[in-house]
Amino acid sequence: MMRLSGVSLSGLIFNYDDSEFFSKNPPIPMNGQAVDDRIDLMARAGVTIFMCNINAQRANYASSAFEPFWSGFDPQAGDDQPFLADMAPEDRPGYRKMCENMLALHNQGVDYAARVISRCRHNGISPWISLRMNDIHWNDRLQHPIHSAFWKENHSCWRVPDRRINYFDRAMDYSQESVRNRHLALVKEALARYDSDGLELDFMRAPYLFRPGYELEGGKILTEWLAQVRQLAVQAGQKRGHPVKLGVRVPVNPVTAYNLGLDAVLWVQCGLVDLVTVAPWFDTMDSNIPWFLWKRLLSPYPVTLAAGLEINAYSYPGGPGGVVDPETAVGAAIAALHGGADIIYLFNYYQTSWCKNWPPGKYESTLRAMSSIRELDCLSRRHMVTFRDVLAPGELADHPLPATGSRLFFRLQTGPRPVGRTVTATIGLQSPVGPEPEAPELRVNGVVCSLQTQQDGVFTFKAPDAALADVVQLLEVSNNKPITANRIELDISGATPA
Amino acid sequence: MMRLSGVSLSGLIFNYDDSEFFSKNPPIPMNGQAVDDRIDLMARAGVTIFMCNINAQRANYASSAFEPFWSGFDPQAGDDQPFLADMAPEDRPGYRKMCENMLALHNQGVDYAARVISRCRHNGISPWISLRMNDIHWNDRLQHPIHSAFWKENHSCWRVPDRRINYFDRAMDYSQESVRNRHLALVKEALARYDSDGLELDFMRAPYLFRPGYELEGGKILTEWLAQVRQLAVQAGQKRGHPVKLGVRVPVNPVTAYNLGLDAVLWVQCGLVDLVTVAPWFDTMDSNIPWFLWKRLLSPYPVTLAAGLEINAYSYPGGPGGVVDPETAVGAAIAALHGGADIIYLFNYYQTSWCKNWPPGKYESTLRAMSSIRELDCLSRRHMVTFRDVLAPGELADHPLPATGSRLFFRLQTGPRPVGRTVTATIGLQSPVGPEPEAPELRVNGVVCSLQTQQDGVFTFKAPDAALADVVQLLEVSNNKPITANRIELDISGATPA
Repeated sequence: MMRLSGVSLSGLIFNYDDSEFFSKNPPIPMNGQAVDDRIDLMARAGVTIFMCNINAQRANYASSAFEPFWSGFDPQAGDDQPFLADMAPEDRPGYRKMCENMLALHNQGVDYAARVISRCRHNGISPWISLRMNDIHWNDRLQHPIHSAFWKENHSCWRVPDRRINYFDRAMDYSQESVRNRHLALVKEALARYDSDGLELDFMRAPYLFRPGYELEGGKILTEWLAQVRQLAVQAGQKRGHPVKLGVRVPVNPVTAYNLGLDAVLWVQCGLVDLVTVAPWFDTMDSNIPWFLWKRLLSPYPVTLAAGLEINAYSYPGGPGGVVDPETAVGAAIAALHGGADIIYLFNYYQTSWCKNWPPGKYESTLRAMSSIRELDCLSRRHMVTFRDVLAPGELADHPLPATGSRLFFRLQTGPRPVGRTVTATIGLQSPVGPEPEAPELRVNGVVCSLQTQQDGVFTFKAPDAALADVVQLLEVSNNKPITANRIELDISGATPA
Repeated sequence: MMRLSGVSLSGLIFNYDDSEFFSKNPPIPMNGQAVDDRIDLMARAGVTIFMCNINAQRANYASSAFEPFWSGFDPQAGDDQPFLADMAPEDRPGYRKMCENMLALHNQGVDYAARVISRCRHNGISPWISLRMNDIHWNDRLQHPIHSAFWKENHSCWRVPDRRINYFDRAMDYSQESVRNRHLALVKEALARYDSDGLELDFMRAPYLFRPGYELEGGKILTEWLAQVRQLAVQAGQKRGHPVKLGVRVPVNPVTAYNLGLDAVLWVQCGLVDLVTVAPWFDTMDSNIPWFLWKRLLSPYPVTLAAGLEINAYSYPGGPGGVVDPETAVGAAIAALHGGADIIYLFNYYQTSWCKNWPPGKYESTLRAMSSIRELDCLSRRHMVTFRDVLAPGELADHPLPATGSRLFFRLQTGPRPVGRTVTATIGLQSPVGPEPEAPELRVNGVVCSLQTQQDGVFTFKAPDAALADVVQLLEVSNNKPITANRIELDISGATPA
């Protein structure tokens, strides 16, 4: 098997969704300068590797592998044109704007990804192309303009053609040659068209590539297909005179990834990939990723393990939480790096949309700290019990909250042992009908913590220094009568910089 | 790091509990011939590696590291003697018999384990010594005669000294030097006294060795301790003129094992062990062990991965099930070997007690087949959804059953793809108050199966050949209204021998 350099990637990886750029900002008129400005911001935020997304089911350039997003769009016609007909009226202006912006850049002769790559190199950022392997946005609307003709016309290529029980049922079935060939054409085109340092196959959009029950068989087919992609990337690297690395995004749990046919560990063992990014889907940040396990699995091989951070953080499906704030991002990043990840990888961390409510200056300063455990450790951080948002069919749900009982135990990965910090635990109890719940007892690693505040069923405790362990804390919440906990968090103050 | 031979062990491993031998059979008078007869049975059953257990908290010989089981026992006194006082009266005769038998052998000048080793060699079986590292039988009775003086007198060495919330709270805390030293003395004694091919450290009796919340820290201490044991085993091997291998028994889930400080993968990476046996505790066989994951973790290193089968098989705690029958044992064994285990390891598979109701001849014939996937595949087998009986503190419960909903999915590892067999699925639905539940629809890997029989809420279906996959089947049980499934099984007929 061929192998490229085993040198680990360092710094910070940032994935940029093309639809974010073209639909949300900047305002039209679109031009090359707007692309450059976006990359310059990334440079200021300490990004060292930029994943330039160029497709969903369609491409953001005049592709001959996938039709472009604007195919069928009439810029002169109104929002009532057939192209937009299957969209809710309130969604049409945004989608229209995206197509107009893409067309505008195209008509100016500016190739978006080529411009991104050029500006990245200007800033010393390593540019990669990121391909979404199975995007199924809006799959409940069969004629939504985001869909490819292939998807619309080949229902037999859906992984579940005959019924839609699950959101992911209409993803493409990669055990079918036509599906693989279609994406291989995009791979070839991207490698020929763009001089990037790497190509990412983003299997997290979406991670269901096979008929339910046929994932292991499908995984074997996918591995063979990936060997073809590797070969193409190696050839592209020879032509370019520098390596073109290969990366994959896969689910956070190695068993689930395997059970879905996304056998990243095997791919690494076979020398097919240089970068494995493990990431939740979208519903939440995952605070319980088994980092040591990924590290153990990958450590014998020359590969970089990236920790993918998503932009939501919820206690459980429908539970307390929201868009990630800087403290929660810092907590997730330091736990991942301390646990065994080599580098942080941000997905959906857009200053002008998801992160627009972060305090001024916090976006750049937080992202800049993500290259280093030491710098992260100087910032305040939050660790919260969340859940896992990707399961293979038949796997058990994986959300510790809400939990009911008179004695509840929770594990929380918290990075390096906090020494000399203020460590505050927040315990949320679900209000039953009637009086406010009584304060529970909290132990951290067996040590009783002192109650600090209580309001509306939310209790805070101070965790003593001596109680705290490295890597993970065990929280025990108990009461004389059964309680229902719906929120478990630890806030750790930052270290004074040395 | 030192390494011994990387040659994988083959055949069948059998663990024999000393208390089984001495208390249950043969009847007194005990003698060396009884030991030989037991080993000869093992040879007929195809056992190639015999794990001779010699201790719990006490030793079955006149040890100077652990007191012998009979220390304090007065063979002349009645069942009302102080030694037996903390036992229920009905349990006393059996325990008394065990002590009498051990003493009888001792008084005849027969060393049990030495005799076992000698007879194993006579039969071409490889003899190992197995040490229980933290036995806590009867820990609710503080003066039970099974306890060591050390355990009784050093409550501060318990992992939870101040309260007993959990059955395992009174296990010894290996972060304490006195605990490690006590067991190291037993290791030294066993290596000096017995010329075995290997030494097994059985951490599954019981797998909780550290204070809750301090397992990762404790695991580091244990790894250093294990390096000492390795050194002693290597020295013993040099003295004996043949390798003395080292084995460990650890929990079935690699994350749980790590979270409990039983970091078998690290031990393998450091070259400290030659055999890793993963096994449930006792409550049930586990049909969902991630074999591929263990294999992936261990494959770069020279180590044997053994699949530990326990003797119970239950659908969930308190649910349908019972003692394993031959078909269920065959199912577990073939799934493990096909999934990636190198060899089967039986625990509590005693012909004269747990397996006494197996049909005549089935014990030997079933065990003999366990050395080979091909031979196992010729036998009828059963695969049932069970649960996991060992969790680290704060980990989520892991039992798919009982499950309630109108559409339920289950995964079941079933070994090599059944071709040309009769495959019958059994679905048990919990009877609500009132009429018998209606027949659900069953799909295997998406293919609808035909209902065969129904009685008292138990439904059988025929799964068509074309539906069946290699390694794992996905079962989907659905109905118009919510149902509660409490039993999920697949019976597969044996292949005609070639």
